[in-house]
Amino acid sequence: MSIEPIKWLGDKLRLLDQTRLPGEEIYIELSDHQGIASAITELKIRGAPAIGIAGAYGVALGAQKINSKAKDEFLEKLRDVSKTLTTTRPTAKNLFWAIERMQKVARTGKDAEEIKELLIAEAKKIHAEEVESSRKLSQLGSELIWDGSSILTHCNTGALATSGYGTALGAIKWAKEQGKKIKVYVTETRPLLQGARLTCWELKKANITSVLITDSMAGYLMSQKKIDCVIVGADRIALNGDIANKVGTYSLAVLAKEHGIPFYVAAPTTTVDPNLSSGDQIPIEQRSPDEVTHIQGIAIAPEGFEALNYAFDVTPHQLISAIITERGIIREPYGEGLKEVC
Amino acid sequence: MSIEPIKWLGDKLRLLDQTRLPGEEIYIELSDHQGIASAITELKIRGAPAIGIAGAYGVALGAQKINSKAKDEFLEKLRDVSKTLTTTRPTAKNLFWAIERMQKVARTGKDAEEIKELLIAEAKKIHAEEVESSRKLSQLGSELIWDGSSILTHCNTGALATSGYGTALGAIKWAKEQGKKIKVYVTETRPLLQGARLTCWELKKANITSVLITDSMAGYLMSQKKIDCVIVGADRIALNGDIANKVGTYSLAVLAKEHGIPFYVAAPTTTVDPNLSSGDQIPIEQRSPDEVTHIQGIAIAPEGFEALNYAFDVTPHQLISAIITERGIIREPYGEGLKEVC
Repeated sequence: MSIEPIKWLGDKLRLLDQTRLPGEEIYIELSDHQGIASAITELKIRGAPAIGIAGAYGVALGAQKINSKAKDEFLEKLRDVSKTLTTTRPTAKNLFWAIERMQKVARTGKDAEEIKELLIAEAKKIHAEEVESSRKLSQLGSELIWDGSSILTHCNTGALATSGYGTALGAIKWAKEQGKKIKVYVTETRPLLQGARLTCWELKKANITSVLITDSMAGYLMSQKKIDCVIVGADRIALNGDIANKVGTYSLAVLAKEHGIPFYVAAPTTTVDPNLSSGDQIPIEQRSPDEVTHIQGIAIAPEGFEALNYAFDVTPHQLISAIITERGIIREPYGEGLKEVC
Repeated sequence: MSIEPIKWLGDKLRLLDQTRLPGEEIYIELSDHQGIASAITELKIRGAPAIGIAGAYGVALGAQKINSKAKDEFLEKLRDVSKTLTTTRPTAKNLFWAIERMQKVARTGKDAEEIKELLIAEAKKIHAEEVESSRKLSQLGSELIWDGSSILTHCNTGALATSGYGTALGAIKWAKEQGKKIKVYVTETRPLLQGARLTCWELKKANITSVLITDSMAGYLMSQKKIDCVIVGADRIALNGDIANKVGTYSLAVLAKEHGIPFYVAAPTTTVDPNLSSGDQIPIEQRSPDEVTHIQGIAIAPEGFEALNYAFDVTPHQLISAIITERGIIREPYGEGLKEVC
């Protein structure tokens, strides 16, 4: 794997600062949970699986700084650490899943010292598992990508988003490695341009034929029969198969349906929320309007103009042809399939 | 009308440079057709009706510089002038319509001097007629906008695009002037951000409650029942009611259908192409990929990354609830209605 966006250095975490790509490859080293929380909030690290991993390391790093010896007091302070990390971003399930798992492991430790060790081991385990999940689901997902096909993808779902192969982009990369001749259309993904900045950067490194388009061009390309399938990631999956993903995903799903094009979602099972029966219960993050009114610091609208900035949207399961997980490809009825893999 | 994007100064044309908005209100004065042609190509003036008007003045200005006295020779040189102007942009019908009309008038003049005078008079007439059309269609279109409704619009279709009230945005402004309480959602309209830069600027001047969104957020807003109707302009209308308009329009039309939201197109009859039976015959301009890979000069993708830049797309008539012209609101079957008004 040539891209290593998340690397544990023994006593600190090294992250590739994704806000600086594609112009600069800058690595930052973080040794406390506040630093990790800020990196998540500021999108230096983003992508549902990746922020799960970073969140786990955040708990582990936070634990190392707790001075309390008594287990109860230690766990109480660890809950504060976890709270700081969980309040960074509300939509991606993986973050909450990872932190809950870290909390659970902490409770099994007999004393502060053991808990500290257990948490580092658990974060590394979560990291390794997510990398492995991403490899498996990329392999499975690649089966849905035909030789000679053109694939539309949205946002970034590659190594940067997962620390492994990727999810949607992982399947695309796997298909390429199998020798399939494919072409990828990448939506730029406004407002923060993860498609243009990050996915194009990964596709270039992977030497895959690809073309950048604005989000608004996807419909026209479909009408011109230039797209054979759409494949995207997910930030949270409800038990009925509804998914939340980067804003614009829903529009692509509606357009895919209109044109009879398969619409695939690829995500590890850590993205599934077993507490939610449908997508309308998924909390949708609203970010600063400045991300819409400004592009890389430059104002594009009159000063003070009101803007909305939903970071995600919800795509109902009826529009999804299949959900690709590391434990199998799931199709309607999603309820059964998702329960089986979780 | 407080905004005067096109003003004839007796011997030259004054244009508000739309590439500098909303940051700066800079006027440029052009005294020859080459200058007008460049202004159209570089989008200093844009919007189908507006480039029709500018094209007409371009022919008039070009004519003034022709030294030939013989009518035949004069007309031949005038054809070169017209050719320079018609090869600027391929999609908007209004440009070709206006230049053809100017050519026709030129042929009626008895000599070079008379032709020069006739052409200035004709350009002024076209300008005045387009302003009047825009006033009438804005008034008619406003009837489709209910009190208390939220309207989604795309790109810029106001005074800047028409030199008059506007088309889609004209109808919105008229509704507001009638005292209707309305809210406008404006798509930023990548790649060149005419929604964010120009429509927001006009809406602010008109004191209309409005919110900027990225193009990718429209679907989610519709799913949240925040949009009551969509209204857009057109660059060319085929006789079956198919329209070409700013890229992204087609996606909005598909989304509107999915949500049962009316989708209106507002354009003067000069946008109708009586030679085209359907939208698939409309030439779609492809502009420089740099407009996609860069935003206001800043690279957003890795250097040299391939990009597509369709400036327009085609929306089939089946997705259009009504076409608003200055001569009436037309509904299915569009063939009959459009023939009647042309």
